[in-house]
Amino acid sequence: MRMETTVIEVTTGSTPTTIDLTERAAEFVADKGDGLLSVFVPHATAGVAVFETGARSDADLVAHLDVLFPRDDRWRHRHGSPGHGADHVVPALVAPSITVPVLGGELALGTWQSIVLVDPNRDNQRRMVRFSFLAG
Amino acid sequence: MRMETTVIEVTTGSTPTTIDLTERAAEFVADKGDGLLSVFVPHATAGVAVFETGARSDADLVAHLDVLFPRDDRWRHRHGSPGHGADHVVPALVAPSITVPVLGGELALGTWQSIVLVDPNRDNQRRMVRFSFLAG
Amino acid sequence: MRMETTVIEVTTGSTPTTIDLTERAAEFVADKGDGLLSVFVPHATAGVAVFETGARSDADLVAHLDVLFPRDDRWRHRHGSPGHGADHVVPALVAPSITVPVLGGELALGTWQSIVLVDPNRDNQRRMVRFSFLAG
Repeated sequence: MRMETTVIEVTTGSTPTTIDLTERAAEFVADKGDGLLSVFVPHATAGVAVFETGARSDADLVAHLDVLFPRDDRWRHRHGSPGHGADHVVPALVAPSITVPVLGGELALGTWQSIVLVDPNRDNQRRMVRFSFLAG
Repeated sequence: MRMETTVIEVTTGSTPTTIDLTERAAEFVADKGDGLLSVFVPHATAGVAVFETGARSDADLVAHLDVLFPRDDRWRHRHGSPGHGADHVVPALVAPSITVPVLGGELALGTWQSIVLVDPNRDNQRRMVRFSFLAG
Repeated sequence: MRMETTVIEVTTGSTPTTIDLTERAAEFVADKGDGLLSVFVPHATAGVAVFETGARSDADLVAHLDVLFPRDDRWRHRHGSPGHGADHVVPALVAPSITVPVLGGELALGTWQSIVLVDPNRDNQRRMVRFSFLAG
């Protein structure tokens, strides 16, 4: 048994956004059996979440991150665009790592769940995401 | 080596609540050795947390989720009961996936830690939880 | 294949703080190959996060936890120092468990990422952290 791992690249653009990674994760595990999929974002201003992207909950999340982490001048971290310090605190609550069980090469997600890159950062337009599969 | 996995069903009722899963998780791993336990909730409006359920911290969490994610009309997601859009954002911060180390068939939890299903949703009264054990 | 696991002890002192665990995690995995590292904090009032510790984002996080979880008299949990009930709710959002991929004995972290113990609690001055490595 070996761990299999790959890095994909996604374009997030210059506005806070979410990117659905489910299809690419599903492709990555499709030829594998049972095991755990680690989705890891090697960036300090992004996270990964599992939630429903339809019915505009993705826009709700992006808007609500601005409520929970206001882009004002409270932040000691002052690099980048105004309020960018907020982006550095988000990953402590929207972690850049999540684990999803895989059964017979299929993600064991619920009907309404997607694996989503959460990127509040306006300053980074391209992101990496690492998929790692540990077989059972 | 193989991954062992099972799905349990829990009744959460029609009010926001937390359900302690520790005992059922402990039973699941009791005949297994060392490894990692993945606790995964295949629902878009629930999460899983590890925290203390005694001394009313569970009621504190349920109440505080209403503060952090107010059930008002701000949410674009408008299905379900009033403010239900909030339930869809909670899992981005209270993730539906957590990993717990297992040693000699015992959960390596701290004295005061429990594994807890967090379900703010009034509209779903029954929930599934998947336990997956990857042996070391 | 076996899981390898160890517990380290860290001194967090009597003020809310963050402790960078990256170096000790890197040492733990240095002689190992590919796999997943579980970082697990067996305490009910602490979490673990992966974020940037430089440029004062660590101080931003500590300060912002006091905004998101105010240390006032709203908490039903009333043991410990004033507002300590907040410390028991933090781990539901800053979870005590995170998984980091390891490649060839090296943590697959991004350039600006650190693995960090987040301890808002004034009352516990020493903490344990468990590292567990599941080889691929």
